[in-house]
Amino acid sequence: MSIHARRHNARRLLVERRLRALLHRSHPRDLREGCRYVLAAGGKRVRSVLVLLAAEAVGGSARAAADAGAAVELLHNFTLVHDDVMDHADTRRGRPTVHRRWDLNTALLVGDVLLGLGYDRLLRTRSPRIASILRVYTEGLLEVCEGQALDLEFERRDDVRPGEYFRMIEMKTARLIAMSAELGGLIGGGTAREVAALRTFGFRLGRAFQLQDDLLDVVAEEEAFGKVIGGDILEGKKTYLFLRALQEASARDRAALRRLVRKAPAGAPRNPRSRASRARVAAVTALYRRYGVMAAAERAVQRDTAAAVRALERLPDTPARATLRWLAASLLRRSS
Amino acid sequence: MSIHARRHNARRLLVERRLRALLHRSHPRDLREGCRYVLAAGGKRVRSVLVLLAAEAVGGSARAAADAGAAVELLHNFTLVHDDVMDHADTRRGRPTVHRRWDLNTALLVGDVLLGLGYDRLLRTRSPRIASILRVYTEGLLEVCEGQALDLEFERRDDVRPGEYFRMIEMKTARLIAMSAELGGLIGGGTAREVAALRTFGFRLGRAFQLQDDLLDVVAEEEAFGKVIGGDILEGKKTYLFLRALQEASARDRAALRRLVRKAPAGAPRNPRSRASRARVAAVTALYRRYGVMAAAERAVQRDTAAAVRALERLPDTPARATLRWLAASLLRRSS
Repeated sequence: MSIHARRHNARRLLVERRLRALLHRSHPRDLREGCRYVLAAGGKRVRSVLVLLAAEAVGGSARAAADAGAAVELLHNFTLVHDDVMDHADTRRGRPTVHRRWDLNTALLVGDVLLGLGYDRLLRTRSPRIASILRVYTEGLLEVCEGQALDLEFERRDDVRPGEYFRMIEMKTARLIAMSAELGGLIGGGTAREVAALRTFGFRLGRAFQLQDDLLDVVAEEEAFGKVIGGDILEGKKTYLFLRALQEASARDRAALRRLVRKAPAGAPRNPRSRASRARVAAVTALYRRYGVMAAAERAVQRDTAAAVRALERLPDTPARATLRWLAASLLRRSS
Repeated sequence: MSIHARRHNARRLLVERRLRALLHRSHPRDLREGCRYVLAAGGKRVRSVLVLLAAEAVGGSARAAADAGAAVELLHNFTLVHDDVMDHADTRRGRPTVHRRWDLNTALLVGDVLLGLGYDRLLRTRSPRIASILRVYTEGLLEVCEGQALDLEFERRDDVRPGEYFRMIEMKTARLIAMSAELGGLIGGGTAREVAALRTFGFRLGRAFQLQDDLLDVVAEEEAFGKVIGGDILEGKKTYLFLRALQEASARDRAALRRLVRKAPAGAPRNPRSRASRARVAAVTALYRRYGVMAAAERAVQRDTAAAVRALERLPDTPARATLRWLAASLLRRSS
C-alpha cells in the first residue's frame, strides 16, 4: 500500500469513529436500525477524507475536521436514501435499499434523521468560522436537492441538451465534493485564496468523477466494475454519452439511439446478461464510437482532472497536498 | 381587535415577508411551485410569532428574530409535507397535500428543500450565539423526527400506554414550540434563567395545545371546528382520550372501544356524516364520559396552561409578556 493510500485510510478511520459515535442516540428502534444499516454500508468515504485532507493542506489538523468529515458523509447518505426512493432503486452497494428492506416511511424518516445528524455533527466543529461553515453546508444541501429535481425533470423530457446535463451533475455531484474541500479549507484556517483553490479542486474533480462514471458503464471490465456493462443503456438513463450522441448523430442514428436506449416496460423480462441485452449494448456502444462521444467524454475527464490538479498549485507544498493529487489521479485511473 | 391580536398580526406579517423573500431562489419549477404552494397555505404561524415575542420579552427586537421565526415555520412545514406522505393524508388545510397535488417525489424534495431553506434563513440571524441557536434548531429537528417515528410505531401497536403517548406528543409537538420560544430568548439576548423560562412556557403550552386538539375532536362545535366531529374516532387514531379510556375501562368496555375506534377497511364507504358514523362517535363519546377521560384531559390542559403562564412570571413585565399570556389563554379558549 502506498504512503498516500495509508494516509487516506487513517483519515477514513477517524471519520468512521465519529460516525459510530452518533449511533448511540436513543432513537426509536426502526430509525436507529435504519441509520445504522445505511452507515454500515461503508463505501470509500471519499468526500469525508477530502474534508480532512483539505484542512491539513492549509495547515489545520485532520482531527479538528473529523466532525465535518462525518457530517458530509451523513449529508451524502441522506441524499442516497431519498434518491433511491425517488428512483425506485431496489439495491445500493449490493444490499436492498432502505425502502425495500423496511418501507417508504422508514426511508423517509431515516433520510431526514441522517440530515439532522449531519448538522448535529457539523455543529461540534470548533471554529471561529462556524457560521460560514454552516452556510456552505446548507448551500450544498439546497443544490443537491435542486440537482435531483433537475434529474427527475430530465427523465420526463426528450430534449435535454448536453449542457443542461452538465449543469445537473454539477449540482448533484460536483458541488457536494467542492463543498467538502471548501469546508476543510475553512476549518483548517485557510486564506480566501486557498479556500477558493480547494473549492475549484473539488468542483473539477467532482465533475470528472461523474463523467468517468458514465464512461465506466460502457468501457469498464465487467468483473472489476462489479456491475453489468451497459446498465445505463438498458435502464434508459440519459447520460452524457447518450445526450451528446443524440446531438451529433444523423437523423437515422438518432432514431436508432432513442429506440435502443430505454427502460424495459414494467413487467417485461430484462435480464442484462441475455443475448438481446448484450446486442443492444453493443449496438449503442458502436454508435457512441461512431460519433466519438467516448473520446469526447475522456477528453472532458482529462481536462477537468488537469484543472483540479492545477488548482492545487495554489496551496503550500505539504504531504496532504501530495495525497490530494494522488486522490485525483486514482479516481481517474479507477475501474470501478 | 384587541391590542394583543394586533401585536400578533404585526409580528406575523414580518415573518410572511421573510418567507416570501426566499421563494425567489431559482429552483427547478416543480420544486419552486411546491414550496410556494405549501407556504401559501398560511395558517396562524403561531410558532413564528412565538419566536418574535420571546425575543421581545427578554429585551430584544422582533425584527432581529424574524429570520428565525421564518426558519421555525419552514421546519414545521417540512414535517407536515413528509408526515402527510407517511400518513397517506389527502388534504391539509382544505387543499390537496403535496404528494396528491403533484407526486411522491415532489413531496419528498419539497420537504427536503423546505428544511434546507429553514437553515438558510436561520443562518441570516446576526447573533453572537449563532452556534447555540443552530444547536437548538437541530435538536428540534431530530426530536420531531423521533416523535414521528414513535407515532408510526404506535399505529402498529395495540398496547400503547397514555404515558408513552405523552412522550410522543412531547417530541412531536411540544419540543418544537419550546424550541421556538427558546430561539427567541437566545436571539433576544436573554439570561440563562429567562431562556429556560421561555422554554418551559413553550413546552407546557405545546403539550396543552396538542391535548386540546384531541379534546376538540369530540367536544367542539362542528361548524366552528371546520372538520367533522369524531374524525379521530372514525380514523382509529390513538389519542390520549382513547388510550386513557382503554386503561380505565372494564374488560367489556375495553373490547367495545377497540371495536368502535378503528379505521374503516380500505375501500369500505366511510361517510363521516352517515347515521352509522354518528352512532359510532356517540357511543365512543359516551364511554369517554363514563370513564371521565374528557374531564381528565381538560384538567391536564388547564394544568399545563397554568404552568406555562407561571413560567412567564420569571420574565420582566413587558407588553410582549402580556401578549404571550394572551396567546396561551386564546389557545386554551380556541374552538378550532
